[in-house]
Amino acid sequence: MNIDLAFTAAELERKDLQDKTVVVIDALRATSTMIAALENGCLAFIPVATIEEAKKLFADQGDPKLLLGGERRALPVAGFHMGNSPRDYRPEKVSGKTVIMTTTNGTRALVAAGKAAEVLIGAFLNLGALCRRLEESGRDVLIACAGEKGFFCLEDTVCGGAMIARLEKDGTPLKKSDAALGAKILYEYFAEDIYGMLAACEWGQYLERMGLGKDVRICAQIDSSQLVPVYREGKVSLDR
Amino acid sequence: MNIDLAFTAAELERKDLQDKTVVVIDALRATSTMIAALENGCLAFIPVATIEEAKKLFADQGDPKLLLGGERRALPVAGFHMGNSPRDYRPEKVSGKTVIMTTTNGTRALVAAGKAAEVLIGAFLNLGALCRRLEESGRDVLIACAGEKGFFCLEDTVCGGAMIARLEKDGTPLKKSDAALGAKILYEYFAEDIYGMLAACEWGQYLERMGLGKDVRICAQIDSSQLVPVYREGKVSLDR
Repeated sequence: MNIDLAFTAAELERKDLQDKTVVVIDALRATSTMIAALENGCLAFIPVATIEEAKKLFADQGDPKLLLGGERRALPVAGFHMGNSPRDYRPEKVSGKTVIMTTTNGTRALVAAGKAAEVLIGAFLNLGALCRRLEESGRDVLIACAGEKGFFCLEDTVCGGAMIARLEKDGTPLKKSDAALGAKILYEYFAEDIYGMLAACEWGQYLERMGLGKDVRICAQIDSSQLVPVYREGKVSLDR
Repeated sequence: MNIDLAFTAAELERKDLQDKTVVVIDALRATSTMIAALENGCLAFIPVATIEEAKKLFADQGDPKLLLGGERRALPVAGFHMGNSPRDYRPEKVSGKTVIMTTTNGTRALVAAGKAAEVLIGAFLNLGALCRRLEESGRDVLIACAGEKGFFCLEDTVCGGAMIARLEKDGTPLKKSDAALGAKILYEYFAEDIYGMLAACEWGQYLERMGLGKDVRICAQIDSSQLVPVYREGKVSLDR
């Protein structure tokens, strides 16, 4: 299996995605939050690029099963039902609901990934389940880090590296690109203390300063979920 | 000192360069070749983006002290005096000459770096001398990896990481971005065998297949030069 990694959505937009499985990672916090919400009975997410687009779609649909979620610079958007904290997506709030979601980095990566054979949602939370899914499909893999405003971020890269290390531990022979090899080495460096890495990386420090340190702890819960959400036809949901 | 790193010229183009020293690295081979050529008495390089631009500038100037150098996909360009191999730049060929140079990745990074307070040329060859220069200036540093066709490449990142590790070893207190921290960790992983890393990375393997393995060995010669070339007003040369 060939495995490659894009550090940013901008890189992803220039990669060849044909016949590949793309795994989109926005570990702090969008993809972790999506997994947590689906665990709590949320039906789906509809990622959109802008706040305006989210509001317009919500108003046009007028569906009581729709909610608005998202953030800008980690803060909830005025008038939205939820921010981008996994703690916002409690069962009583999201069960049976679909969330129109806009976040700074995750949405662009999802949209760019749309041309791949399959697009999966990854985070530390569903590491093992995601790797089993990749092993079952056997397709070449491109890990797409959401990054931070178009730049490298440590947490998504280390999470991608954790997937690569897990696949190899499971016995999957991998042909790794330079980027995939680099991500695996970075994961191995931080493997003993993923929470420490999440709290110390640039975005993790920012979240701590914003009083969102609890979210960082939640996003560090490796293998806490068996769900592998899929992005298809503009929606993130569970397909089985 | 704040220190950051861009993996690609595309990232560099979006970074804030004001009041910073930018170090441009294209370890295999453009910046290594420039250092080797200046060691051999070459006066300067004029980096240009395209083969056509290089030929036009050469024809327009009609100066016997000008030469044409460069490559596409590691191969010399038809009609040029030199390729992009350090072995092409022998003293009898380049002493007292200025080379109009076009390479796949290095030129874009140099042009993008042009807005910085100072732009230095780095490689494994001049690691120590370059770090002393950075320590003297004390300005914030942005390491600009040329990358490979707009994507991450291991060798430039590890070379950047080597600079960060050397600065810290010299006692310079650094505030590292996520990218700078990642590069330093990658350098430390490969520190015992830089040649092995250069030969095993994607571009190094390609050079080996093209019969250019000797160049890879030359580019691995850490601290073999005390020169720190500067890019200023469109030219790479020694300013002292």
